[in-house]
Amino acid sequence: MDPLTESWDRVVQRHATLRFVDTNLKGAGQVMFQGNALTGLLFLIGIAWGTVSARTISVMVGAVVGLVVATVTGGLLNADTTSLRVGLFGYNGILVGAAFPTFLAGPMMWAFLVVGSATSTVVFLATANVFKTWGVAALTFPFNLVNWIFLLGAFQFLRIETPGLGAGQFPQHVGDASMHTHITVGYLWDTLFRNLAQIFLIDNTVTGVIFAIALLVASRWAAVFALIGSGVATATVLALGANSVDVGNGLYGLSSVLTAIALGSVFYQPSWRILVYAMFGVLVTVVVHAALVSAFAPISLPAGTGPFVIVTWMFLLPKHKFVPVQHGVIRGGAAESRHSKGGTP
Amino acid sequence: MDPLTESWDRVVQRHATLRFVDTNLKGAGQVMFQGNALTGLLFLIGIAWGTVSARTISVMVGAVVGLVVATVTGGLLNADTTSLRVGLFGYNGILVGAAFPTFLAGPMMWAFLVVGSATSTVVFLATANVFKTWGVAALTFPFNLVNWIFLLGAFQFLRIETPGLGAGQFPQHVGDASMHTHITVGYLWDTLFRNLAQIFLIDNTVTGVIFAIALLVASRWAAVFALIGSGVATATVLALGANSVDVGNGLYGLSSVLTAIALGSVFYQPSWRILVYAMFGVLVTVVVHAALVSAFAPISLPAGTGPFVIVTWMFLLPKHKFVPVQHGVIRGGAAESRHSKGGTP
Amino acid sequence: MDPLTESWDRVVQRHATLRFVDTNLKGAGQVMFQGNALTGLLFLIGIAWGTVSARTISVMVGAVVGLVVATVTGGLLNADTTSLRVGLFGYNGILVGAAFPTFLAGPMMWAFLVVGSATSTVVFLATANVFKTWGVAALTFPFNLVNWIFLLGAFQFLRIETPGLGAGQFPQHVGDASMHTHITVGYLWDTLFRNLAQIFLIDNTVTGVIFAIALLVASRWAAVFALIGSGVATATVLALGANSVDVGNGLYGLSSVLTAIALGSVFYQPSWRILVYAMFGVLVTVVVHAALVSAFAPISLPAGTGPFVIVTWMFLLPKHKFVPVQHGVIRGGAAESRHSKGGTP
Repeated sequence: MDPLTESWDRVVQRHATLRFVDTNLKGAGQVMFQGNALTGLLFLIGIAWGTVSARTISVMVGAVVGLVVATVTGGLLNADTTSLRVGLFGYNGILVGAAFPTFLAGPMMWAFLVVGSATSTVVFLATANVFKTWGVAALTFPFNLVNWIFLLGAFQFLRIETPGLGAGQFPQHVGDASMHTHITVGYLWDTLFRNLAQIFLIDNTVTGVIFAIALLVASRWAAVFALIGSGVATATVLALGANSVDVGNGLYGLSSVLTAIALGSVFYQPSWRILVYAMFGVLVTVVVHAALVSAFAPISLPAGTGPFVIVTWMFLLPKHKFVPVQHGVIRGGAAESRHSKGGTP
Repeated sequence: MDPLTESWDRVVQRHATLRFVDTNLKGAGQVMFQGNALTGLLFLIGIAWGTVSARTISVMVGAVVGLVVATVTGGLLNADTTSLRVGLFGYNGILVGAAFPTFLAGPMMWAFLVVGSATSTVVFLATANVFKTWGVAALTFPFNLVNWIFLLGAFQFLRIETPGLGAGQFPQHVGDASMHTHITVGYLWDTLFRNLAQIFLIDNTVTGVIFAIALLVASRWAAVFALIGSGVATATVLALGANSVDVGNGLYGLSSVLTAIALGSVFYQPSWRILVYAMFGVLVTVVVHAALVSAFAPISLPAGTGPFVIVTWMFLLPKHKFVPVQHGVIRGGAAESRHSKGGTP
Repeated sequence: MDPLTESWDRVVQRHATLRFVDTNLKGAGQVMFQGNALTGLLFLIGIAWGTVSARTISVMVGAVVGLVVATVTGGLLNADTTSLRVGLFGYNGILVGAAFPTFLAGPMMWAFLVVGSATSTVVFLATANVFKTWGVAALTFPFNLVNWIFLLGAFQFLRIETPGLGAGQFPQHVGDASMHTHITVGYLWDTLFRNLAQIFLIDNTVTGVIFAIALLVASRWAAVFALIGSGVATATVLALGANSVDVGNGLYGLSSVLTAIALGSVFYQPSWRILVYAMFGVLVTVVVHAALVSAFAPISLPAGTGPFVIVTWMFLLPKHKFVPVQHGVIRGGAAESRHSKGGTP
């Protein structure tokens, strides 16, 4: 542990208020799996930069409110103290708080945001309990579930507006018109970092650079895998021919960055073998993102970090030397006769 | 136990036919978690009142047929006798039986209803088995799954008509036109009780009052939480600005009533703390209802009691002092190399 | 074991290349639950017949590529050797490989097919791990998930075309016009066998006959249940009035054939009681197929073998004398107060 972290930790032990700040900063950091207060602080700085640039301050305010509400809800529900202190009850809330002002507006939006952030903590506890059965983490599923439910719900409420949600339409094959003619070095550079920035729904290259630094502060491997994942995802979708404006804004890479960090540097030990496995995961992540774009077209929903969650679960659930249930007779089915085998037909 | 119940139980012990009637009545009662024959009888009386008033007798006939078919199927599948006797194999069937004649018609509708009710028992056994892993009940998920599958299926069959299902459309933001100008005391009174009546798909205030009495007969707390849940849900959706005709018909409150009973009086002990938790659940339930209305718009499905199931599972799954899987290395992944760690890239 | 199988097995022991061929043939056979190389070979011959007749050779090539890629991926991921050798890592891949060229085209289609087939193995491992909790097999869920994700994804990529996917539309009630006037013996004969052929997405009666023989070679009961399931499904959908062109092409029966084999001859011992249970499953399977046709109309997806997976899981999960979680107080909820019960409100 570096001297700065050490002295910060000493200060934090003595002051309840600073401990609360520390917990929340770690919660921000956990969006990319880093229970590190400095990472979280840099994430908030990156968000501030992006939202000030785009004049969408409500996104920054929402993120902070969501983070604090979700963390406090964890405390009120008697959450495991160790998990609370490393920020596991904040990272879904900060994403809810960034997402709602991005897509919604109206007089009751902030009430929606507070309830949604608190709900993300309940869903986190529920999801974590279910997936613990197979030794897998909840990831950002709670954020995505809350995001999808509350955005869909907003359509039915007069006092929540939905300016950020497009009109419903049937999925259609992407046309030539949606392709750039020139893929420049500047475009690729922007995309590389916007893939990171869009995890917090920010469309800003500088924010992405700040996020990369924030990762580097906590884990060299996390930063490396984030950038490799970002690059591989971009190359893949350009080869396949995805809408190049969406690609350039980082929408096709945000989930891949998370998949690469999760598989490459968090849940497995970095190795050549794991690098290949993580990049396989990145390929699948861009396809799942495209699939969600199609599936959600009729109901106007954004994919969020859903592709990351789906693929990372898929790629974490397989276990070494695992023996599946075979294609043979199962005993004890409800339809079996009570005492003995029935006669064969 | 009151003297009436006691002597009824004595009579029931001696007569197989009455025992079967008792099992079915308890099955009706279990729709609101009361394994109580008198509650079930009052539910049937409430349904009779509502369907006679609206001249939709087929809904009442369907409810009874569905109840009996589902219960008998439970017996044929060698279901746990104790669970069978308290009505756990009937409550999904009665809802299937009330729903199909509400939405469907045509010469093969009754065959559909019989198969659907029997299917609800199989799905109950399957769901109960899966959710037992986390100590949570199946709730009315089996009804909702069967309802959604068979209603969607009906579109593809010439001899099942779909008069109760609207045309598909993309979700759209609710407009000013869908709001009442005057919310009167009469409107609020009707809504309070129709939120109960709509659990059995009945749009009738008197039926709702009979249902409230039916709950009171079995559990004071169940009746209290049902009405509090109904009131809080109504206040919430009026504040948010939902379609006030739908609100007045009880569509926005039916799932909230069930969430309030389940969280407040069935699966947790009533307390101030649980009251707050249950009302939090009620808030989320109305949002989930609105979300399902939007999500199901393109495929013409009703939300049923789905929002109750989703939210009650969400709010029951978190366990006290539960330690989630942390964001750290997991051993035994399929991608790890066979013998030793690979070289770091 | 017959002498032919015995001598084949002896030869296979000595030659690694033949062992690999054997594993892949068994993988083909496992699509209908038969870990039998001759069955798999006959399946491939049936596919060859159908694709040569229809001049869709790419479907046959795709099937072989998908089978091999999925099997090799299983080996690379250190899968359980016994499961690998009986073909459990190939049967989803062969279906992915047959499906993609049926629905997709374009320069990147084959890259998509390779990645999709490899993904089916990862999803198989993940699904098998999850469903092992309840003693149930993964079935063809991995194929369906991969199929749905990659087909939906294809809409967003310029270099993958979607000629086999129709335009999105809202589900509509089937009209009189979609009904044949004459159901002939020839129509019924074709349907009986096309229900088998369509499992591999082939619309050809002779292929269906070859598939029936392929089953007979491995298991008399499997062949019997396949044909009974096919017949019952056809009779049911004609009685309900489904689109008779789709019925005649085997689309309404393919999942029912699999349900009948699985419930009647694989996971339960054949008996009169199980015959009734399996036919109940067949009835529900045709309804689920119709439901998926409706639900997928807006997003242009085919139902695949999804109805089989859903229904077979439903009908395998109920266990004998199983006691579900009762409707009573659960201890240890996150909302309970930390030390003692709160005061009652």
